[in-house]
Amino acid sequence: MMHTQQSVHGSDAAAHSHLKRHTISVLVENKFGAFVRVAGMFSAKGYNIDSLSVGPTEEENISRMTIVTRGDDQIIEQITKQLNKLIDTIKVVDLTFESFVERELVLVKVQSTQSSRPEIMQIAEIFRAKVVDISAKSLTLEATGGQQKVDAIIKMLKPFGIKELARTGRVALKREFQGEV
Amino acid sequence: MMHTQQSVHGSDAAAHSHLKRHTISVLVENKFGAFVRVAGMFSAKGYNIDSLSVGPTEEENISRMTIVTRGDDQIIEQITKQLNKLIDTIKVVDLTFESFVERELVLVKVQSTQSSRPEIMQIAEIFRAKVVDISAKSLTLEATGGQQKVDAIIKMLKPFGIKELARTGRVALKREFQGEV
Repeated sequence: MMHTQQSVHGSDAAAHSHLKRHTISVLVENKFGAFVRVAGMFSAKGYNIDSLSVGPTEEENISRMTIVTRGDDQIIEQITKQLNKLIDTIKVVDLTFESFVERELVLVKVQSTQSSRPEIMQIAEIFRAKVVDISAKSLTLEATGGQQKVDAIIKMLKPFGIKELARTGRVALKREFQGEV
Repeated sequence: MMHTQQSVHGSDAAAHSHLKRHTISVLVENKFGAFVRVAGMFSAKGYNIDSLSVGPTEEENISRMTIVTRGDDQIIEQITKQLNKLIDTIKVVDLTFESFVERELVLVKVQSTQSSRPEIMQIAEIFRAKVVDISAKSLTLEATGGQQKVDAIIKMLKPFGIKELARTGRVALKREFQGEV
C-alpha cells in the first residue's frame, strides 16, 4: 500500500496511473466533528486527499464536502459505502462516473513593479482574473476555473515571483448538458 | 461549553456575539492524514468549523488550509499554539487581527424555464456570475466573492428553485493595501 501514501502532486502520481482520480460529494449534517470523521475515513484507508472543500448548502445545518482523491476504484467504493454508514452523512455521490462541472478559486499575491505591472495585468485579462488588492510592490489576483486553468495562470505568474497563494478545494456539480458551455 | 456546539449558521450565533469569527491560515506538509489532524484539533476543543478549504500552494508538498471558525479569542489562541506544535504544520496565521482579502466560489444549479431564464441571466449579470451548464430545465452558475456577496446571489436565486449548490470554503490572504479594491 506504499503508493497510496505518496502525494498526488508528486511525480509518482503518473507512475500509478491505475489510481483513478475520484471526485466525491458528501452532504453532511453540520455537526460537531462531522467533517473530521468523513475526512478521517480516507486517511484511515491510507488515501491522501488532493483537495477538500466544505461549505454550507441551501439547507440550514447541512454542509457539502467535496473531496478529490486518487485511488483504486474498488477501495474508493468501500470508502463510499462506509461513508454512507456514518450517522453524519446524508448523501454520498462519487461523481467519477458522471459528467460534471468542476471549479476552484485561487488568490495569488504576485510581486510587481511599475514596469512589470502592465504585463501581469495582461495575463490577468487573458484569464479573466480580477485584481483584488494592490500595493507598490504587489498585486493580488482572483482567478477561477478548472484545475488546469488555475494551474496555467499560476505557471504564467511564477516568473514574476509569487509571494503567497491560497487555493480553495474544488467543488463539483453533475452536468445536465452533455458538453462544454 | 454548550454554545460552541451550535452551528454558526444558526440563529444562535447572534446570541453569542462574544464568539468572534476567526480566519486561520495553516501551511501544512501535504502528508498522510495531516489535514485530519489539523481539523481534529478544532473539533477536539468543541469548535465547529464554519468553512474549510484545502488546496496546493506554490511549493510542492505543501498545502494551505483556510479554516473559518467562531470562538473565544483565548481558546482560539490555545488552538493555534497547539497547531504550531503539530509536526505537520509549517506556519499558522490567525488573520483575525489583520486586514485581509477573503473569497469563495459557489456553483448553483437553479431551475429555469424558457420564461424565467432571462430573469436569471439578469441576476447572473449583476453579480458577474458565469453560466457553466445549461439544460432545458436548469442553469448552473458560477459566482465568486466575499461571503455576503455569495449569500446575496443565492438569496436572489432561491425563488426560482435551487436544485443543487456547492460552495467552496473561503480562502484568504493578508492585504497589502489598507482599503477595498
